[in-house]
Amino acid sequence: MIELRGAPAAESLLQQARERLQNLPFVPHLHVVRLGEDPASVSYVRLKDRKAREIGLKSTVHVLPEESSQADLLVLIEHLNQDQDAHGILVQLPLPRHIDAQTVIETINPLKDVDGFHPENVGKLWLGQEALLPCTPAGILALCDHHQIQLSGKQVVIVGRSNIVGKPLAALMLSRDATVTIAHSRTLNLSEVTRRADVLVAAVGRPGTITPEMVKPGAVVLDVGVNRLEGKLVGDVAPEVQEVAGALTPVPGGIGPMTVANLMLNTVLAAERQR
Amino acid sequence: MIELRGAPAAESLLQQARERLQNLPFVPHLHVVRLGEDPASVSYVRLKDRKAREIGLKSTVHVLPEESSQADLLVLIEHLNQDQDAHGILVQLPLPRHIDAQTVIETINPLKDVDGFHPENVGKLWLGQEALLPCTPAGILALCDHHQIQLSGKQVVIVGRSNIVGKPLAALMLSRDATVTIAHSRTLNLSEVTRRADVLVAAVGRPGTITPEMVKPGAVVLDVGVNRLEGKLVGDVAPEVQEVAGALTPVPGGIGPMTVANLMLNTVLAAERQR
Repeated sequence: MIELRGAPAAESLLQQARERLQNLPFVPHLHVVRLGEDPASVSYVRLKDRKAREIGLKSTVHVLPEESSQADLLVLIEHLNQDQDAHGILVQLPLPRHIDAQTVIETINPLKDVDGFHPENVGKLWLGQEALLPCTPAGILALCDHHQIQLSGKQVVIVGRSNIVGKPLAALMLSRDATVTIAHSRTLNLSEVTRRADVLVAAVGRPGTITPEMVKPGAVVLDVGVNRLEGKLVGDVAPEVQEVAGALTPVPGGIGPMTVANLMLNTVLAAERQR
Repeated sequence: MIELRGAPAAESLLQQARERLQNLPFVPHLHVVRLGEDPASVSYVRLKDRKAREIGLKSTVHVLPEESSQADLLVLIEHLNQDQDAHGILVQLPLPRHIDAQTVIETINPLKDVDGFHPENVGKLWLGQEALLPCTPAGILALCDHHQIQLSGKQVVIVGRSNIVGKPLAALMLSRDATVTIAHSRTLNLSEVTRRADVLVAAVGRPGTITPEMVKPGAVVLDVGVNRLEGKLVGDVAPEVQEVAGALTPVPGGIGPMTVANLMLNTVLAAERQR
């Protein structure tokens, strides 16, 4: 079985970002907004901030108290929308319950929406127009490309229909001429569906969702899950799948690095388009 | 085999539109823009205009010469965007080659975009937010509902990945908890894929695309094709499929009426949201 490590593929995305950076007459500036001190959010935001600086971007993290009002958050976003020195705006999710994430996302200028979550970017993705792509799905595609996994004409089965991974990934896989199936919690005979996959994507958020008998021997398995289990980080794919799959992404170290790398590329692309 | 006729289902959509109309303190006004004299466009626009008047909407058709510039068309759209007495704006497609359809569609105020083609509406559809839905996919769903075709947990296979039918229909079928597969011209072993379908949708635009051996016995087959063949209107599904399918939409008289009926409902919904 081939282990599909993210690091080398992420590095080639970052290299692409660095090269484009050199052709810009200014340094793009990423602004990440975090509310409160949720440990996972703190750690993700730190990672993004560090990686941005590492490749030569400017990066600012705005930390608001957890009890900030939605109005306060929107004022900050409007300010960043206007700010010529803010090329990428990312509001770290999840947000506290008293804030409506959708309203927040829709307030971000779509040209600065480096998460690719704004309805206009989602619409353009499905229409095949130039858009800022959501980082995890775009990163998955880059990983496939790096490891020369053919997608055209392949049966791709995506388990999970989230707005962040499952659905946008379906659009991208379709744009690569894959035959795409989206399965989910209401899918009957899930293992029958997953066993058809040449490329199986697990994006559910539950450890052990994909077991060996659900995988066609030799299939490529992409594990998007990031779950904490007994203090360890595990994916959605049971470890025994290694014995059936032809190729598999590890967790951690598979899709994870792709997401962050694609955020860097998005920030550069956003800056280019704002010139 | 059950024939899934559109007329009764369309009538119930129109009834819904009429009822909502009565609760509005004004009469919604649909504006349809047509460029040139393409016979199919002339006939579609006439149909929409007539149906709108029939159910009690105001309707205006704006006819521009085929050689009109894109700028002229955009000026008209901007005018209609501002006009408080324009609740729905529809530009009949296809447009002459010298005009970029995407630019035209993006100029329409998304709140008045009764075709549901604006990126913002497409994005909201995929995000599960309130949006104006594209008329044919929404009409297909209404047809299924009228004929009490269960979608939840079913294998739905959509052949065709257009922005107008295949892709948005996938979003709607997913919202109904179907397991959705999108197949297309690059799909390998198409009949193997289509034979899995409990509900098979043909939206390709080529007569005879779906033949009996591609259909699971008893499956529901929805024929979205509208093709002219030897002076007759035929769908994408070969006539012999009648002997295998459990239920089938006729062409004409199946999906067609649903599209127009849903346009009427969209115009009323758009007017409600603009209050």
